[in-house]
Formats: sequence, structure tokens, C-alpha cells
Amino acid sequence: MPLLVLLRHGQSQWNLENRFTGWVDVDLTEKGEAEARRGGELLGAAGVEFDRAFTSVLTRAIRTGNLALEAMGQLWIPVEKDWRLNERHYGGLTGLDKAETAARHGDEQVHVWRRSYDIPPPPLEAGSQWDLSKDRRYKPGQVPATESLKTTLERVEPYWNSDIAPTLKRGETVLVAAHGNSLRAIVKLLFQVSDADIPGVEIPTGNPLEIMLDENLRPLSARYLDAARAQPLPPVG
Amino acid sequence: MPLLVLLRHGQSQWNLENRFTGWVDVDLTEKGEAEARRGGELLGAAGVEFDRAFTSVLTRAIRTGNLALEAMGQLWIPVEKDWRLNERHYGGLTGLDKAETAARHGDEQVHVWRRSYDIPPPPLEAGSQWDLSKDRRYKPGQVPATESLKTTLERVEPYWNSDIAPTLKRGETVLVAAHGNSLRAIVKLLFQVSDADIPGVEIPTGNPLEIMLDENLRPLSARYLDAARAQPLPPVG
Repeated sequence: MPLLVLLRHGQSQWNLENRFTGWVDVDLTEKGEAEARRGGELLGAAGVEFDRAFTSVLTRAIRTGNLALEAMGQLWIPVEKDWRLNERHYGGLTGLDKAETAARHGDEQVHVWRRSYDIPPPPLEAGSQWDLSKDRRYKPGQVPATESLKTTLERVEPYWNSDIAPTLKRGETVLVAAHGNSLRAIVKLLFQVSDADIPGVEIPTGNPLEIMLDENLRPLSARYLDAARAQPLPPVG
Repeated sequence: MPLLVLLRHGQSQWNLENRFTGWVDVDLTEKGEAEARRGGELLGAAGVEFDRAFTSVLTRAIRTGNLALEAMGQLWIPVEKDWRLNERHYGGLTGLDKAETAARHGDEQVHVWRRSYDIPPPPLEAGSQWDLSKDRRYKPGQVPATESLKTTLERVEPYWNSDIAPTLKRGETVLVAAHGNSLRAIVKLLFQVSDADIPGVEIPTGNPLEIMLDENLRPLSARYLDAARAQPLPPVG
């Protein structure tokens, strides 16, 4: 039967500094590296044998996957990297820390952007130092100016359908090492979480979420491997 | 024009202990990690922009590629892992250190096995702790009992032809992070080195070998990025 494990990357330098990161390619801190290794150790202890991994084109997610696989002695499995698993693009909030954001926009507005399903922050300003449209890892048109969770899901879903779901349907055991919002999109698709509820689903960092699926990729069961740091999961079935 | 960089992995735990390693999945030492990062820094300083990387299914080569790419901010490129880029399988010598090997077989015989093109060491004994034929990363029939440099080349060459050469012919810039003997096989193919000469070609660890190729993949020029640690190269053209 198909087995899917979702692994959210641990602390990055900008997580530590409380800055909106999105598509900026910030590396893990030492704590974030340790979280990834710990996730791998839990998966190894659970006897999970991966066939394939999927990750974004952002260093913090790629390294999280690699560090976890290394800790399990499974770094040799194929790993596919795709921009459609990137974090949500935070538009004009990119690079701002908590205090700067509150000063510019007010706490209430920031809460709306963080917690609504379909309201994106303002677009990134033209000429911003965080404009990634010239980064050679992206083709023209791939870099958005801003994203809501909804538009994030709208680019995660085609990749899920074209690459990840067919792999699972072949019966492979799959790791997805990615970001808070691209993983939220996958959870929404799999568990059919409502638009209203999905912003409230929190996936803890470095804590492997193991989902057993039936042949139609409906969840049969789901659990966090580190039960002490679990968060509530959407109901199964 | 196609550009190819060959990068040999740095010190592993068994390199340090002077043991024959072959296909045993021994990790890099801290020194080996530093060699890989240094290789990446040299490539970054030279402005090399990779499109794709190829490596073996052995941790020390995969990590060498990843550490080098990380040092260049290019960890996001696609990386293909294939057993046909593995190190030469040392058969019955696997796991033995220098003193054990000399005591069992004599220095002269060991020199023959190391330095001949087509004489393999004795096969790995059945039931050896280093028997990898049950390792799930290999399909039945893929794990040899021993290899010469010639039989190593005979499995590198089909992969070169099916995967690496077509990528280069599309004009991509390619990194191959691998092992002393799988890289020797590639050098023999590219530079048409004779059977007699190829065992004497030494590729230094962690020192990127940059080869410019014409559209038919004939070498136009070749250089080591760390000139102070260069070794003689076969003639070009």
C-alpha cells in the first residue's frame, strides 16, 4: 500500500529572525539541521524504507530531506526537486520582520494575510532586492509577485497530480520534504479540508507525518512520529 | 558548448584506515567534507553554472556532490544517482587494510590488482559481511563479486552513453561526483587513453577537473581548478 511521509523543514536563519521568507533561499540554522536529522532518526527507528523523495528548489527543504535520508542510510534514493513545492510567496512582506510588518501594516492586517485562505499580501515591489524573477532556477512566468494559500495550492496540485500521486499509485513509499504552506496544500487535497479550516492546520517542523493511503490515495491513517510534538490532524476517511 | 566537471570524493573513513572500500557505503570524514566544500568554492569562484549532476548510489559521492553544490548555492539542480557510477568493486580485498592485504597476498600481487587494467582481485567470499547482493538499492544481478578497471568501465560506458553524453550534447553543464575508478573510466573514454596507460592516471580528490568539449564530446581543453594539486592529464585532441 502507498505510504506518504510529509516532513516540514526546521528552523532557518529567517525563522530565527522572525522574517517573512517565502521564496528567498535562506539556509537552515544548526537547530534546523538537528531537527532534520532527528526526523530521519525517527523514520529509521520506525523502519520506513523510502523509494523516492520530492522536495522544492529551496535549500532549506532540500537539505532537510537529505539530512533525514542520511540519518536513515537512504541518501541513495532518487530525489526530485520542483519549484511547485516551494513555500508560499509572501509578496511585499518578504524580508520584513515582525516589528517592521506590524509598523507598516498593523497586526490585524498581518493576521488576515497569514490566516485567510485566499487573500494574498500586497505584491512584491518592482526592483525589490527580493525579486527572484531573474534567478536561473525559474523559467519566465514561474515566479509570482505574491501568493495566497489558495494560489499556492493551485500550483502544488498539478505537480501532485503529475508526479507525486502516480508514484504513490505504483505502491512506492514517498517522502515529501517541503514547507509549511506547500505541505498544507497537500494535506488539504488529501484530507479534503475546507477553505475555512486549512489555515488553522499546523504542521510541526521536523516531525514526520506518516500517512497510510488506500489505492485511490484516500488516507487510512495518519500519525506524527514524534507524538510529544504532534498537532491535531484532520479526520481520516 | 558542453562543459563537464569531474569531482572525485575526498577522504572517507576507510581511506583514512587504508582499507579497500569498493561498494561498501562508508561515509566521508570531516576532512573529506571539507575537500568537497573546497571543490565547490573553486567552482563557484570560476563562475561555473551547472545544469545537472550525476553521482553514484554511495553516500560519500552523493554527499561530495551535494556539499560542493551547496557551497556554490546550486543545490537546487537535478541530481541523478546510479549504481553504474559506483567505485570499482574490490572483491575479496573488500574491508582489508594494507597490512592484512600484504600478509594474505603479498605486496607485489596487490600492486598487480591495483595497477593492471583487466586483472580483478579474487571474488568476495560467499557469506562475507561485505556481500551487498541483498542491499535493496541494487537489483538482482547488479552487484558483482569483483571488478577490474576494465569491467568497471564496461558498466560505466552504457550509463555514459544513455544518460550523461546526451545531456552534454544538449549543451548542458554537467557535474559528475564519483570515485577514483568510475572517473578513470570516463577519462579513458573521453581522452581515448590506452589500456596500459589508464591505471597510471591519478585524479586528485576534491579537485574539480573541468573539461571543455566540442559538440561530438571531444575534449578541447582540460584543467584542474586547484592548479597546485593538479596531476598530469592525458593529451587533448
